[in-house]
Amino acid sequence: MSKLTSNEPTSVKTVSEKTPLIHIDNTSDSFSKVTLTSPTSLPNATGFLWNRSMVMQVNCRGYVNSQFMQPEPAKYSYAPNMEAKSFIQPEHSYFSHHPGRFFYLKDEDSGEIISLPYEPMRVELDKFSFELGNSDITWSIEHSGLQISIKVNLTKDDLVECWFFSICNLTETTRSISIYPYFSIGYMSWMNQSATYDEGLNAIVATSVTPYQKVEDYFKNAQLKDKTFFLSDTIPTAWHTNQKAFEGEGGLHNPSALQSERLENVEARYETPVAVMQFQQQLLPSERKTLQFLFGPAKDEAEIANIKEKYLGHQQRSQAINDYQEYIAQGKACLTLTSDSDTRNSAFNDFFNHWLPRQMFYHGDVNRLSTDPQTRNYIQDNMGMAFIDTQVTRQAYIRAVSQQSINGAMPEGVLLHENAELKYINQIPHADHGVWLPICLTVYLNETADVSLLKEMISFSDSQEKQSFIRHIELALDYLINATDHRGLSFIEQGDWCDPMNMVGYQGKGVSSWLSLATSYALTSWCNLCDEYDISINIQKYDEYRFAAQAINSAVNKHLWHGEWFARGITDEGRVFGTNEDEEGKIFLNPQSWAMLSGAVNEEQQKHMIVAITEQLTTPQGVMMLAPSYTSMVEDIGRITQKHPGVSENGSVYNHAAVFYIYALYQAGENNLAFELLNKMLPSLETAQVTGQLPIYVPNYYRGAYHQFPEQAGRSSHLFNTGTISWLYRCLVEELCGLKGCAKGLQIMPKLPVSLQKLSGQRLFRGAIINFDIEQSRDIIITEILLDKQVVSGNVLSELNSGQQYQLHVRVPLHV
Amino acid sequence: MSKLTSNEPTSVKTVSEKTPLIHIDNTSDSFSKVTLTSPTSLPNATGFLWNRSMVMQVNCRGYVNSQFMQPEPAKYSYAPNMEAKSFIQPEHSYFSHHPGRFFYLKDEDSGEIISLPYEPMRVELDKFSFELGNSDITWSIEHSGLQISIKVNLTKDDLVECWFFSICNLTETTRSISIYPYFSIGYMSWMNQSATYDEGLNAIVATSVTPYQKVEDYFKNAQLKDKTFFLSDTIPTAWHTNQKAFEGEGGLHNPSALQSERLENVEARYETPVAVMQFQQQLLPSERKTLQFLFGPAKDEAEIANIKEKYLGHQQRSQAINDYQEYIAQGKACLTLTSDSDTRNSAFNDFFNHWLPRQMFYHGDVNRLSTDPQTRNYIQDNMGMAFIDTQVTRQAYIRAVSQQSINGAMPEGVLLHENAELKYINQIPHADHGVWLPICLTVYLNETADVSLLKEMISFSDSQEKQSFIRHIELALDYLINATDHRGLSFIEQGDWCDPMNMVGYQGKGVSSWLSLATSYALTSWCNLCDEYDISINIQKYDEYRFAAQAINSAVNKHLWHGEWFARGITDEGRVFGTNEDEEGKIFLNPQSWAMLSGAVNEEQQKHMIVAITEQLTTPQGVMMLAPSYTSMVEDIGRITQKHPGVSENGSVYNHAAVFYIYALYQAGENNLAFELLNKMLPSLETAQVTGQLPIYVPNYYRGAYHQFPEQAGRSSHLFNTGTISWLYRCLVEELCGLKGCAKGLQIMPKLPVSLQKLSGQRLFRGAIINFDIEQSRDIIITEILLDKQVVSGNVLSELNSGQQYQLHVRVPLHV
Repeated sequence: MSKLTSNEPTSVKTVSEKTPLIHIDNTSDSFSKVTLTSPTSLPNATGFLWNRSMVMQVNCRGYVNSQFMQPEPAKYSYAPNMEAKSFIQPEHSYFSHHPGRFFYLKDEDSGEIISLPYEPMRVELDKFSFELGNSDITWSIEHSGLQISIKVNLTKDDLVECWFFSICNLTETTRSISIYPYFSIGYMSWMNQSATYDEGLNAIVATSVTPYQKVEDYFKNAQLKDKTFFLSDTIPTAWHTNQKAFEGEGGLHNPSALQSERLENVEARYETPVAVMQFQQQLLPSERKTLQFLFGPAKDEAEIANIKEKYLGHQQRSQAINDYQEYIAQGKACLTLTSDSDTRNSAFNDFFNHWLPRQMFYHGDVNRLSTDPQTRNYIQDNMGMAFIDTQVTRQAYIRAVSQQSINGAMPEGVLLHENAELKYINQIPHADHGVWLPICLTVYLNETADVSLLKEMISFSDSQEKQSFIRHIELALDYLINATDHRGLSFIEQGDWCDPMNMVGYQGKGVSSWLSLATSYALTSWCNLCDEYDISINIQKYDEYRFAAQAINSAVNKHLWHGEWFARGITDEGRVFGTNEDEEGKIFLNPQSWAMLSGAVNEEQQKHMIVAITEQLTTPQGVMMLAPSYTSMVEDIGRITQKHPGVSENGSVYNHAAVFYIYALYQAGENNLAFELLNKMLPSLETAQVTGQLPIYVPNYYRGAYHQFPEQAGRSSHLFNTGTISWLYRCLVEELCGLKGCAKGLQIMPKLPVSLQKLSGQRLFRGAIINFDIEQSRDIIITEILLDKQVVSGNVLSELNSGQQYQLHVRVPLHV
Repeated sequence: MSKLTSNEPTSVKTVSEKTPLIHIDNTSDSFSKVTLTSPTSLPNATGFLWNRSMVMQVNCRGYVNSQFMQPEPAKYSYAPNMEAKSFIQPEHSYFSHHPGRFFYLKDEDSGEIISLPYEPMRVELDKFSFELGNSDITWSIEHSGLQISIKVNLTKDDLVECWFFSICNLTETTRSISIYPYFSIGYMSWMNQSATYDEGLNAIVATSVTPYQKVEDYFKNAQLKDKTFFLSDTIPTAWHTNQKAFEGEGGLHNPSALQSERLENVEARYETPVAVMQFQQQLLPSERKTLQFLFGPAKDEAEIANIKEKYLGHQQRSQAINDYQEYIAQGKACLTLTSDSDTRNSAFNDFFNHWLPRQMFYHGDVNRLSTDPQTRNYIQDNMGMAFIDTQVTRQAYIRAVSQQSINGAMPEGVLLHENAELKYINQIPHADHGVWLPICLTVYLNETADVSLLKEMISFSDSQEKQSFIRHIELALDYLINATDHRGLSFIEQGDWCDPMNMVGYQGKGVSSWLSLATSYALTSWCNLCDEYDISINIQKYDEYRFAAQAINSAVNKHLWHGEWFARGITDEGRVFGTNEDEEGKIFLNPQSWAMLSGAVNEEQQKHMIVAITEQLTTPQGVMMLAPSYTSMVEDIGRITQKHPGVSENGSVYNHAAVFYIYALYQAGENNLAFELLNKMLPSLETAQVTGQLPIYVPNYYRGAYHQFPEQAGRSSHLFNTGTISWLYRCLVEELCGLKGCAKGLQIMPKLPVSLQKLSGQRLFRGAIINFDIEQSRDIIITEILLDKQVVSGNVLSELNSGQQYQLHVRVPLHV
């Protein structure tokens, strides 16, 4: 499927002012690469690779965070101490003994030792580049006349990192070198950990026993992959598996074991293991040598032998690379912008064409490597999948409602595995899980018009009774309508979308303006879907939902509009918060965005709100979730106020909330502001110095508290798990390009900002291939639509055939 | 209470051959110091300080492990990543970012930077010594004409480390220096962590929120001490609190921030905190400057201010040091050997006079800093306390039986705090908890003759009904007698004394030879106590117990004697294991020792057993718990077989088991062998190179698997929590010296080995002070006892008066 890629860049954009040395290489028909040419300018910069069983986040300096599912997350390369199990944290902290994959390189003639790609010796290299491709990560390095390339990819299905090391002598003299891959294994287990070299496998094998104390856990653990292997295609000169002894008094930055001519073949026996091999090599002028390594977890030696046979060797490697490319290439979504678009720069296209779909596919295909994704995440992530593979979305939505309670309550998390359990935050009752399906379902139907889904008969978590998908949605909506107080406002329980807002309503009385508005929006979305897709729903029910939505909007206006914006809620004790009267947490973004979505806001109110948001929440990296950030505990609001100011929900630029606002602005026709904020959200070469990340994913947040802690503001969380992406892609497809599915076909309603003269690309829609260009023009006052040069009346392309190519020309009036 | 100590050593013993440079300074009337003069020869060497609320283990290179109770164990100086909470592990592993207390020292003239005491720069120093005293730990260092002393002690009651840094210019020129204390704070919390300098307090204060997600935990956590402070008595020139920024590209071994003339006063804002201050100083020739620092956890600034007032300043410091000395000095036990003893070396006396009582006091006073010590540990640790403070033992034994079930079962752990819960291993059912009290009570009664304890009326964990202490013991014994199978052998459930032997009997059928023998010994011990102390017990009950003990001994002989030694048990499936027919785990130590204690063994059998133990289990560091160590899982034995061979219960020299054997050998009159093995157990200067530890505590194990993994064999676990110590001290007092309490007074029955000509010292007994000397003589055939020069008939001193001093001379026949 994938062509041989050409390395000829058609466009290279480099930003090298100040420090970060990054560029993006766009080649015409293949995936771009994002390249960082310094290991020190963005020290936390990472790329990530994954398959359905594992993920690895690779830092530009050689540190690696990796985990695999068995089925719960597990490690095979550990920290040097007993690490806590936790959900993935933002702003991951690196330190010198952090797990990594390093290569020490000794010049046997001069005695000079360096480490590659950069850690742990941190020697300045003649040339350095860290290159993030679609399905691989590469370092290209030159030092002292040696050219080194280090490359890693995963495989489509297995638990193995595939490393390729090549070194070429650029000088005119023969060079004597030793190459020492150093792969962290770390503190595996207090019960048992050891490592040695296995001659039969030509591998270092570390063995451990996952600690446990209860007999029943012995049987549960029996299938765990407690070994870590490091396979080599070349027989090493010597080896070392004892971390402490290897390091010696020299330290990781100058290991004692490298002082000898040969490593001393040292085992680890209830000592922290490491995988180090030594390869002594002679390199003639211009000679190149290559080494291949496989690293990962296994249950036993038989599994390691199997991995060896499958992946070690040049042919096996090529096959694996191709298969993995094909796997990642499935993350291709329904819209491609072409280079004649008038977007800010080619990086914009590149991000939307490649990196965002790749991130969306990651979410949809592996569900954040959780066995119990939060229901709201699961539904929204699968909304994104509807732009990639609608069947996945369909199955996910059926799975989600099959875990609904017969009383209508959606679960806290969706269990993906028979032994999965609700963990961490999924043990806390949140009140919002019912709103997401009616809202997100719209995208699925827009992309497919597959009303058959609605008739699927599905049982419940607590009942074998089967009900239609429609009925499941109604039960969810009814549950939401009932979960309201005497004012008609939604109880917040121990949180809504905002998990840590856990003490507003934990006594059973507090309410959420956002959840009320989201309920209203869910009701309206569902009624609109019923209208659009002619869904047979009881008319009384329909009227009831329309009425309830209005009633909620009125109640929110009555109780929560405070002059310039909507408050965030009312506490158990009846205190309205999120208003100008608060010292901190004066204004929250979500109630404003969702008042726009739900129609609770009038034009006048909307103006005020937008001004307030612009003044109080907007930063160079986007819109903060609230401001000012809380600096101390507020006991009737909860845990959010204890988070560090500007971090996560406590007033960061939390992109998930920011994209709701952008989406709402599009609904309100605020195309210019929406596009401006959308641009701020995108990681870019220009902002990398501030965010600290490479433009290959949208992080879950950028630090906020912009006025309180300006020095840290704008930093990326470096966490690529986020609900943002499906909404961001939706904004691109349905709003900016305005190429949105509907019952009759494809509705054309672009929302270009003034700054964007034209936009062109290709839209895949229900099997049809539509090559489009959209242009703003001062010459017209109503939109003109030509399909294959035929004028279209109205704005719906209603007779598109699957498999057929179309040319779509759209001219929209330019409003300045 | 404590005199001013003289630093004049009366005896200095140094071992400097091979590498470890250690010596012990004995001063006549004060506590010895153990001194290590190299930071590299025993890199894991540690000392430990504690009070009732905290413990710190201080490594010779500057690393520190510390925790405090609130009331569950917590940290204030964390690892650089999210560490798992765990019980204390053996063979703790250090790495460069491990928490520590370091002092960088810059020569402002030459630019040279070093770090003290050794980490993280590891610069070779002109002079280095790490000195472990009773109540303080000191480094004395010289480098480039500067003399530095670093000292730490704790306080009696508070949560604070008191550090004292002094530097003296030994040269003839004025020196310009900067001193930078670097105290690790580490990764405190993913919710919130920050640090800055507080001018009012003249302290660095790091703030965090202990992570939680459940509302109820907010209230539970409200009292937690989530701040870490670093107070200084001197205003710093500058400061730094941001670990990553401080370190920079230079690394911990060469921090970038030290390159500037002044630190840049950098905060940590949701970044890993550290406490670094800079003190620029001019030192005239011979001038000395001192700095005082306080480091610890606090709830809020008010607490920090309180600590500051209480401990900062010279007078406060002196007072705190005296108070802490007095606290630690309570760890004085009932026997002191004097230097005219003919022990192997003065280190022997020193260890028994000071270090072992100190370790015993630590166990008895703070219960291993656990809120739920295992019942068997709690009872045995408090047996040791009976040699120090009998009241503590009395209260502990009452507390233990107050948590007994009315059905007789003793609990898995003794809860010391109202909110304490049974954790970790205490959630697994073990069958042995009933045996310890009747056995260990003997020591309490021997020391006190306090039969009033036996009449105390005490309720149960599950009943308000009060029963006498006697009845509690009977219930425990009855429970044990009933927990036997058709053969009369004791069910092992999911473990006995050997926690991880969890699959021998988890199906309810497997039995333990050791537990059967321990039950027999407990019955016999109780009956003997009843005889000795004239305890009014139902005669039928008494006969029943005597009979049951015999029956058990017979059953064990019938089913578990396998030719040369006793097997370890019979599995659920009826397999006898721990015999010569096994490939691994052929012979276990405990059944042999306890067959000797319980009287199950005859003379012939005993000979065979001892030979087998000597051949198969004895190593230079003592007797292994089993051999050969298991190298793979045995499913009808359990978790012990999964531990690394030679580690912990899987065949280490597990000192707790080894001391049972020593004690049993004394009972059998095997004085020479007992003394030989006792000597092997003691950490010493001579064995430090092998064990890796300093002679200040008995570790819970030395690595075993002596024949399987000789290279690692003998290494200390460096874990000073162990049930060994009370038995070891009992061996000294009651067996070696033979100065054992009984109903009528003090029984004299020394068990000197041939190698020990004479022994003298002071025994405190029921308030009397007995200065004794014991000598072996070829000239006599029966023991001669003189008290204050009067011949004593029989071997009991029956009329000792509290407060009175006595001179005791004992001559025993020498048997070669």
